[in-house]
Amino acid sequence: DDGPTEDGKETENPLLGFKTSSVLSGSAREKNIFIHGKLADEEAVVIMEKTPIREDTLAELFRGSTLKLEMRNDIYSTYRLQAPLHLNEIKTTVVCPATEKHVKKYQRQESFLVEETGEDYESITLPYIKQQSFSLQWVYNILEKKAEADRIVYEDPDPKLGFVLLPDFKWDQKQVEDLYLIAIAHCRDIKSIRDLKSDHLPLLKNIFQKGKEAIMLRYNLPASKLRVYLHYQPSYYHLHVHFTKLGFEAPGCSVERAHLLSDVIQNLQSDSQYYKTRTLYFPLRAEDGLLSKFRELGRL
Amino acid sequence: DDGPTEDGKETENPLLGFKTSSVLSGSAREKNIFIHGKLADEEAVVIMEKTPIREDTLAELFRGSTLKLEMRNDIYSTYRLQAPLHLNEIKTTVVCPATEKHVKKYQRQESFLVEETGEDYESITLPYIKQQSFSLQWVYNILEKKAEADRIVYEDPDPKLGFVLLPDFKWDQKQVEDLYLIAIAHCRDIKSIRDLKSDHLPLLKNIFQKGKEAIMLRYNLPASKLRVYLHYQPSYYHLHVHFTKLGFEAPGCSVERAHLLSDVIQNLQSDSQYYKTRTLYFPLRAEDGLLSKFRELGRL
Repeated sequence: DDGPTEDGKETENPLLGFKTSSVLSGSAREKNIFIHGKLADEEAVVIMEKTPIREDTLAELFRGSTLKLEMRNDIYSTYRLQAPLHLNEIKTTVVCPATEKHVKKYQRQESFLVEETGEDYESITLPYIKQQSFSLQWVYNILEKKAEADRIVYEDPDPKLGFVLLPDFKWDQKQVEDLYLIAIAHCRDIKSIRDLKSDHLPLLKNIFQKGKEAIMLRYNLPASKLRVYLHYQPSYYHLHVHFTKLGFEAPGCSVERAHLLSDVIQNLQSDSQYYKTRTLYFPLRAEDGLLSKFRELGRL
Repeated sequence: DDGPTEDGKETENPLLGFKTSSVLSGSAREKNIFIHGKLADEEAVVIMEKTPIREDTLAELFRGSTLKLEMRNDIYSTYRLQAPLHLNEIKTTVVCPATEKHVKKYQRQESFLVEETGEDYESITLPYIKQQSFSLQWVYNILEKKAEADRIVYEDPDPKLGFVLLPDFKWDQKQVEDLYLIAIAHCRDIKSIRDLKSDHLPLLKNIFQKGKEAIMLRYNLPASKLRVYLHYQPSYYHLHVHFTKLGFEAPGCSVERAHLLSDVIQNLQSDSQYYKTRTLYFPLRAEDGLLSKFRELGRL
């Protein structure tokens, strides 16, 4: 039993003196929140997260809770349930004194959905990308085996159709449940899907086909367990394709950023100008320089 | 104040008589659980999910909670927090009587990506949908105001172009961070995006435009904070559109299931037959009857 007083660890409530400055971030889906504020005179960050619902407490939860009906429709009813206190705790972490680094770490940047016509790409996005001249040296190092050569899972060395397949940094390669590989094209003149034409269909089909085969061979995962897609905007402007395990909610696999490679292929097959002319939608973070450009032009 | 007794809706606890057969699934990350069992003599599914932590209740939460110290290390301390009952409710849905389909729907299952050509839809999927004849009574109840009428956020009553906009079951409407609304079309002859033709552009544009306006009015969220999309396969075969907050990782917003309404509109503008002829990809769960059909035909 870990009821409210039995274990003798009840603590003077440190949050009584907490003054909230701002909510840094939080997830309605994960039921957590990150709060910046002051405890006495010191900077502090408070992190709260609801606890998972435990199977071994269900019987007590059903028996000991109070329910209030919210809605009834046909066979569906919804309730607000108030659970016994000790079965519904909130995990709370206090960081105090917190540094500027802690605060930044937990600060969420808001995103905004940008609508980019084909003309916007030419007049806003492309000039911005060129002006930034993001370094792609790390990509070229991989393609030239000057770095990460030992991580390569598969390579087709053909300069036009070829690519290098290797694990994404985010994947620890310990289990296939969160498999995440990247195929980086050898050819260097495709910045993003905006540059794709029907000429590139052999390249795209080659990456799709050989990437799937290599993953089957190495990880024993068939194509029916894979989500294969490109990002727009990509995080670097050199053609690359994401291979992630179906069912793993990889960051960036949402419909507003990801484009299934199979859709890209079909769209180019029926219209070579599809990605040049189409209005594309994508999220940008509040502090992204490209977002400012769209803002300045009254496009948000 | 929505404390335990004030609103007079306290309900006889229906879970007192609930006998658990098995836990179908659940997510420690999302703090939810799906349970199969019996209520009296009827099959039932109970879904519980903890509610998000609300910014507007933080002051009361800090003031009214009991904390127990778990660990202290340098600048970090962790606690178990017991919150005032009305600030820490569990959203509970009871489906009763539940069918085999409900049980399957919530059973954790592996997914497989299915490739469906336009011909596959006609020869495999459409006959399967017709044979199943899923009941849409609950949808018609909403459209006819026989249920959930008080939940309607906006309605355009036009029988051809109109729709009803209301919160999805999954959203508790307490914060906009996980905003999730559904627009259900009044017209009853569109099963899914496969049925969409350029004739439907006025309907789709109407839902897009008026849905965004209604959300701006009611929730003060501009279009740049919204992800607006359709599912394929949908979970019920009556045209509906999902409106979720950008940045909230709503279940089913991944690229393999979601289709941005703005893309759907553009695709139909350039090709009225786009969704009739295109090969579409979607995940199906291991025990889905439709998956068996594709399997039997050697299509997996």
